[in-house]
Amino acid sequence: MNGGLTYRDAGVDLEAARATKARLSELVRGTRTDAVSSDFGSFGGRFRATPGRELVASADGVGTKLKIAFMADRHDTVGADLVNHCVNDILVEGARPLIFMDYVACGVLNPDTVTSVVSGLAAACRANGCALLGGETAEMPDFYAPGEYDLAGFVVGEIAYPKLARRELAPGDRLIGLASSGIHTNGYSFVRALFLGRLGLGAHDPFPGAEVSVSDILLRPHRSYLSILERSLEAGRVRALAHITGGGIPGNVDRVIGGDLDAVVRSDSWPRPHEFDVIARESGADEAELFATFNMGVGMIAVVREADTGKVLEEIRGAGCEAFICGELIAGGGKVHLESA
Amino acid sequence: MNGGLTYRDAGVDLEAARATKARLSELVRGTRTDAVSSDFGSFGGRFRATPGRELVASADGVGTKLKIAFMADRHDTVGADLVNHCVNDILVEGARPLIFMDYVACGVLNPDTVTSVVSGLAAACRANGCALLGGETAEMPDFYAPGEYDLAGFVVGEIAYPKLARRELAPGDRLIGLASSGIHTNGYSFVRALFLGRLGLGAHDPFPGAEVSVSDILLRPHRSYLSILERSLEAGRVRALAHITGGGIPGNVDRVIGGDLDAVVRSDSWPRPHEFDVIARESGADEAELFATFNMGVGMIAVVREADTGKVLEEIRGAGCEAFICGELIAGGGKVHLESA
Repeated sequence: MNGGLTYRDAGVDLEAARATKARLSELVRGTRTDAVSSDFGSFGGRFRATPGRELVASADGVGTKLKIAFMADRHDTVGADLVNHCVNDILVEGARPLIFMDYVACGVLNPDTVTSVVSGLAAACRANGCALLGGETAEMPDFYAPGEYDLAGFVVGEIAYPKLARRELAPGDRLIGLASSGIHTNGYSFVRALFLGRLGLGAHDPFPGAEVSVSDILLRPHRSYLSILERSLEAGRVRALAHITGGGIPGNVDRVIGGDLDAVVRSDSWPRPHEFDVIARESGADEAELFATFNMGVGMIAVVREADTGKVLEEIRGAGCEAFICGELIAGGGKVHLESA
Repeated sequence: MNGGLTYRDAGVDLEAARATKARLSELVRGTRTDAVSSDFGSFGGRFRATPGRELVASADGVGTKLKIAFMADRHDTVGADLVNHCVNDILVEGARPLIFMDYVACGVLNPDTVTSVVSGLAAACRANGCALLGGETAEMPDFYAPGEYDLAGFVVGEIAYPKLARRELAPGDRLIGLASSGIHTNGYSFVRALFLGRLGLGAHDPFPGAEVSVSDILLRPHRSYLSILERSLEAGRVRALAHITGGGIPGNVDRVIGGDLDAVVRSDSWPRPHEFDVIARESGADEAELFATFNMGVGMIAVVREADTGKVLEEIRGAGCEAFICGELIAGGGKVHLESA
């Protein structure tokens, strides 16, 4: 020691970073697909799209759902949230994912935490048939509280269902709601203020009126609709999709219906999952606020011709997802109407 | 008010977010290129690559250089850091950028700050001929200190210089060092511990021995080498490139030379920029530590055949960048030797 400043003094442990990199490299290799042509550790990840196919890219983060993972000290679920959210976002544009890249930022790198996060990302990538091509693990002292991190990701896919992007819709088309797997990844600032703030619950406390814990409900991963919708998409039976994320049904269905149609959504046409009943009761928020914030049990809405409704419901249910006719399109001006009996 | 919890109570202002989105949309539209086929606001950004060309993707963050931007309250330079870093990373693989996506995360969205960040991203995208295809602006209460944010980005490019990825290198090849524009984006935890910690300087204090401020030196953007190297790359005169980032010259040149060659780098063969002299003197760190942490004045190293050296130096200098012969390849086993007279 000569009194010189070293990187370790500055809070960055390069050795731990190298050891972690080796573990992450294994996880990444396990997601390799035919599209990938580079090895782990290159400056940029190389991949091939099918010549002539248009590509679609999307970026997203997990948001404040991460705080629940920190409280529960459980880090293997947020990767699925991120990957599946991104996969759903490009599916709406008619694309299947080719590659995914992650950005994990923390104050001081905890190798077990980062490995757990990346194992979740890798498993979700494999489940969606896409390669975890690479990413960046950033150690940023003084940016993140101890034990905390941020997680963002980026997906590139190629158009497999071009019809979806054309959105040829007409009055009389039916809206099919696909069940969400829970709160997915939006509304978590509201959720935290309610459950952890107002109700004073901890991650391991029982969820009100349920057999499982608060974190079991609040960490349930955002579901991917890719394999669920695959058969109907291959058959060309889906005219448009809306991924129900921030803004809820009103704020996402309006993005696909165009300027000449309105959507009528009957908000009592599907069984409302228990957690949304609890949120409604305990927050006192009105229906409009709830529907503008949460998916309320519907994570994706498919627009189909009336004649195809039965077949599409059958295909979706056959793939293991509940689905309901939840409304229809009428002539109008781009508005979404929420109605209940 | 009915006592119901609203999103604004939970610290998220959806109106401010919408207003900011409109400003960002303008900035993004200004970067549109022929590759882009989607409009702002779609779920995923659509783009086309040239059929048959291989693609390269890379993810990166700005790291703790952001803390200097916070201190100086200057947010229009970090976008260039991020875009140029990503562009250089895929250039090394032989790729030119097609699209870029950003991830900006903050506690409470400050519209002016986010707009300033995105204006920097957009300007850097335009300068590199790539489209800012979209991104995610995440408002995450309790994650980031007031006035702070994190910034990450993802680039996708297509192979334009396939020779670079093949790395056909031989003993006797020359190393050409291209001048950095300063500290670029690595070593900032060290830099902060030294200048702000040990030396107790503020962002607007004069930089030791310089006419300009600490933040003027420390925020100077990471340079893009794309247009600088374009002529030599088009002419096929560059055999390999190493982007000098985290790990410095030893930790990046070793990634391109392969297992049968060593690189000899003469560390006194270029003028060392003033800031690195100050860092060396004030930190007391030895040369090995400095070279493993900082670019030390060389932001990119090009490997060229001896016969092409003069022409490549001329082309790089003609594009406005200083360049120096800083070493050569010899038979060996994948090691990088730093030597000085």
